[in-house]
Amino acid sequence: MNIGIAQINATIGDFSRNAKRILQAYRACIDAGANLVLTPEMSLVGYPPKDLVMKTSFVDKCKQALDYLADETGEVPLLVGYVDYYDYQNSGKPLRNGVAFLQNGKVRHRVWKTLLPTYASFDEHRYFEPSNVCEPFEWNGIKLGMTICEDIWFDDFLERPTYKRNPVEELRAKGVDVILNMSASPFQKGKPQDRANRLEVVACGAGVPVVFCNAVGANDSLVFDGHSMALDAEGNEICSMPGFESCFKVFSLFSKGTHPPKVRGNDREHIYQALVSGLHDYVKKSGFETVCLSLTGGVDSALTASIAVHALGEKNVMGLILPSAITPQQNIDDAYALAENLGIKVEMIPISESCQVAESSLDSVFEGLAKDHTEENIQSRIRGMFLMAYSNKFNSLLLTSGNKSEFSIGNCSAYGDMFGGLAVISDVPKTWVYKLAKFVNEKKVAIPSRSITKEPSSGLVAGQTDADRLPPYEVLDKILELYIEFQVAASDIVEDHQFDEATVRWVQRRVDLNEWKRRQSPLGLQVTSRAFGMGRRVPIVQKFVD
Amino acid sequence: MNIGIAQINATIGDFSRNAKRILQAYRACIDAGANLVLTPEMSLVGYPPKDLVMKTSFVDKCKQALDYLADETGEVPLLVGYVDYYDYQNSGKPLRNGVAFLQNGKVRHRVWKTLLPTYASFDEHRYFEPSNVCEPFEWNGIKLGMTICEDIWFDDFLERPTYKRNPVEELRAKGVDVILNMSASPFQKGKPQDRANRLEVVACGAGVPVVFCNAVGANDSLVFDGHSMALDAEGNEICSMPGFESCFKVFSLFSKGTHPPKVRGNDREHIYQALVSGLHDYVKKSGFETVCLSLTGGVDSALTASIAVHALGEKNVMGLILPSAITPQQNIDDAYALAENLGIKVEMIPISESCQVAESSLDSVFEGLAKDHTEENIQSRIRGMFLMAYSNKFNSLLLTSGNKSEFSIGNCSAYGDMFGGLAVISDVPKTWVYKLAKFVNEKKVAIPSRSITKEPSSGLVAGQTDADRLPPYEVLDKILELYIEFQVAASDIVEDHQFDEATVRWVQRRVDLNEWKRRQSPLGLQVTSRAFGMGRRVPIVQKFVD
Repeated sequence: MNIGIAQINATIGDFSRNAKRILQAYRACIDAGANLVLTPEMSLVGYPPKDLVMKTSFVDKCKQALDYLADETGEVPLLVGYVDYYDYQNSGKPLRNGVAFLQNGKVRHRVWKTLLPTYASFDEHRYFEPSNVCEPFEWNGIKLGMTICEDIWFDDFLERPTYKRNPVEELRAKGVDVILNMSASPFQKGKPQDRANRLEVVACGAGVPVVFCNAVGANDSLVFDGHSMALDAEGNEICSMPGFESCFKVFSLFSKGTHPPKVRGNDREHIYQALVSGLHDYVKKSGFETVCLSLTGGVDSALTASIAVHALGEKNVMGLILPSAITPQQNIDDAYALAENLGIKVEMIPISESCQVAESSLDSVFEGLAKDHTEENIQSRIRGMFLMAYSNKFNSLLLTSGNKSEFSIGNCSAYGDMFGGLAVISDVPKTWVYKLAKFVNEKKVAIPSRSITKEPSSGLVAGQTDADRLPPYEVLDKILELYIEFQVAASDIVEDHQFDEATVRWVQRRVDLNEWKRRQSPLGLQVTSRAFGMGRRVPIVQKFVD
Repeated sequence: MNIGIAQINATIGDFSRNAKRILQAYRACIDAGANLVLTPEMSLVGYPPKDLVMKTSFVDKCKQALDYLADETGEVPLLVGYVDYYDYQNSGKPLRNGVAFLQNGKVRHRVWKTLLPTYASFDEHRYFEPSNVCEPFEWNGIKLGMTICEDIWFDDFLERPTYKRNPVEELRAKGVDVILNMSASPFQKGKPQDRANRLEVVACGAGVPVVFCNAVGANDSLVFDGHSMALDAEGNEICSMPGFESCFKVFSLFSKGTHPPKVRGNDREHIYQALVSGLHDYVKKSGFETVCLSLTGGVDSALTASIAVHALGEKNVMGLILPSAITPQQNIDDAYALAENLGIKVEMIPISESCQVAESSLDSVFEGLAKDHTEENIQSRIRGMFLMAYSNKFNSLLLTSGNKSEFSIGNCSAYGDMFGGLAVISDVPKTWVYKLAKFVNEKKVAIPSRSITKEPSSGLVAGQTDADRLPPYEVLDKILELYIEFQVAASDIVEDHQFDEATVRWVQRRVDLNEWKRRQSPLGLQVTSRAFGMGRRVPIVQKFVD
């Protein structure tokens, strides 16, 4: 009994392309001896399709594509994730998140997702009616326990028992020979190994092997990391697949493993690969060929450029250097050095004349008023205007290099350094930007060492560094992690975690006041447990102080 | 038996301010003879608090404020909407959306919301566990059927029966003397009268009077329109309150009405009032005193300026005129005429020199390439840069004047005319902009007639009008309404609604391709059934064509 796992990268709403990829993997698995082939959750649809599923023809077209896939199946069953209607005669949500069991030209069986995540970036209760029964499906003398993503994740990733149902336990009680799980489980720091540990608990609890097939590739903010695997009934690893890579693997279901599941790689490698994968898919799936970005000589743009080169190749990345009158020569030198190390082209567009003219155009309106953050923002926005002009003229997607620490406290200019199509590292805290920059340089030095060692600065005020304005990044990032990722009250951050009260209150106020700005930022790629965007929904106008 | 309805305007998370307003209204109702006082859903919290409820101290602080309110109550009960914990011993969502019955210094009773809207802009299943029982509460010999918002709206506003429960029917079966409903039901076109009709059905179905207390004021995109009312057991109106106004009213519960409920005002008036209310509350609740905006001589900025003057007074609105080399003198004249009619100050900031310098700075990078939309965007972005400079320097909130038709098809520049803190009319289709402009002029001419009659134009290409680039707005807006508000497949728009296929496909492609741009737009105010933002969640990168 050989199982094929097809770790597919699906594009949302592209049924014909997704169907083709599923079929290719299905046939390759059969050639490698598979008796049954799994694909990820919503492998035919791309996860998450969001409100597209509510469009009047979406489900019909999805089901047409499913019928086409069924037609192409022979003796070896193919499990495909898709969206179906819920019975119109019953009250409830209109749709279901399902997996179809395709064999010999037919849809032989369907299962529906029971546990519907409606937290973090997930909105499944918005669309789907949960399954009300978890039944084994017998095929070839084997009782299959088919589950979809959350159906097996219900414990470890939530702060309290959210669900009243336990699909694994229901299946176990009815007798199954294997738990199959089709997932589209997105990456966040630490999650690949957490998932493996959870799978071990499932296998041991149910006393049967567990097969986990995860999606790979990125759709908007979410990066699916793959890392599909299978465990035997004792929770030992019998199949393990790479992260961040479209691939397939066939293994013998009733083989025995020798050790608990262990995901290869560490957090730094995983985060870096997630960013490369997220950038690649955003650019390619939206039809762009090239990207451009501002090179400032700082570590943020250097890291972003490295990620872009890894994702797209050096020929498809353009560096732009936009010095103002106060830009130190060493920053320009560092930007050129980076470009040379990475092998990317650069263009220089000086902005000082534009800044001067803009400021003098405002002379009469601003008469008698001192310079302040207004003039800093003008500089940043003129830089952004030139970057977008380049992007428009050459149809090259503009990348934004702001990090999570900056976005959190609004230490960035709306419509300035926040211009762009994708904010590549907007969920990476500054302290992690340094870790990733060093990681990049481990194999081959790409980022000039001065970009890593010099004091970080916005570059908008001559001689000023971030240290003049902000708490040290080590402190700031710890406060931000507590406040944003773990939603800890500011008063508790002070009392329980021993941070200086004035600093915590300053951070809190900056985070809360800058929600309007983040709301207008480009899409980012999630790598922590709570990224800005759909995973963190807070009002812009609100007065809560905790 | 007199009921007091307190139509409160709550600010999200401002427990002390909300508690004060509740108490003021409570005491005023008692002075006017009330025996029982209702406030809206989440009157103590402000709706919707979103992820703030998950912060570790939010619910504790909310309950402290509730205890304070309870302390202040005497013999006359006060019904207050708030957020509470769900029993930690049970599995389920961590919180509940509740109403507390406060009397004689105590919380005497609590009810929980049964039907939790999780569609459109609503996310209640993300946070709340539904009530599993709908019980009448007896007080003073009267059996009260207390419900919260959606508990009575379950039929008319949804396309199919979404819920398995029917709280009104459960209460009726157990015997109630009155249905009380505490709501935070946001405005959209046509909804005030729809709600009144639904209340009539509820009253007739349950055979008892219905009291509906709605929130008023705006929180972010949602404008709560008030229009609280009460109907007798035959569905006739016995109390009717104004829209868009904080107020209270006391009426005799067992009086008899003479006619079905009829909401005053028409769609034009309601939409205009909603925009005034939304702008007012966004500005005031976020602590700004003044707003500024670009006056182009066109109808969009004229309407936006009129709304701002109605909301904040003419002294608090600043008009900025930013002509380029190709701006016709008549547009400048129209902008000045509008400012004079409205009584607002204006400043002029010419942008042509900045545009010239920007273009020449790009000469070498763009060598040999023709002018295209890049140069149009430069113009728009330089204008935006100046507007934000004014906003920054004078701490004056910048308003954006883009309409829904433009935002839909991306006929606006990201980081250009989309700069700003609030996109006042971004949910108003262009054809409705004209209707509202005429409505503004009905009482007193504020908008120069030429701004209404001239051909609309982006003003970015000399001599070009929208008609040169776009389908007629009457056609465009009908297609957009079908495609966006009703999610009709493009093929069905062609077949069932007889629109030209090429036009529909062009519109569809423009809408789909510009999701990235809208995602970066300022917050807008919802007035239709589906506004961009939280009410319409679609992937940026997706390939579905229907």
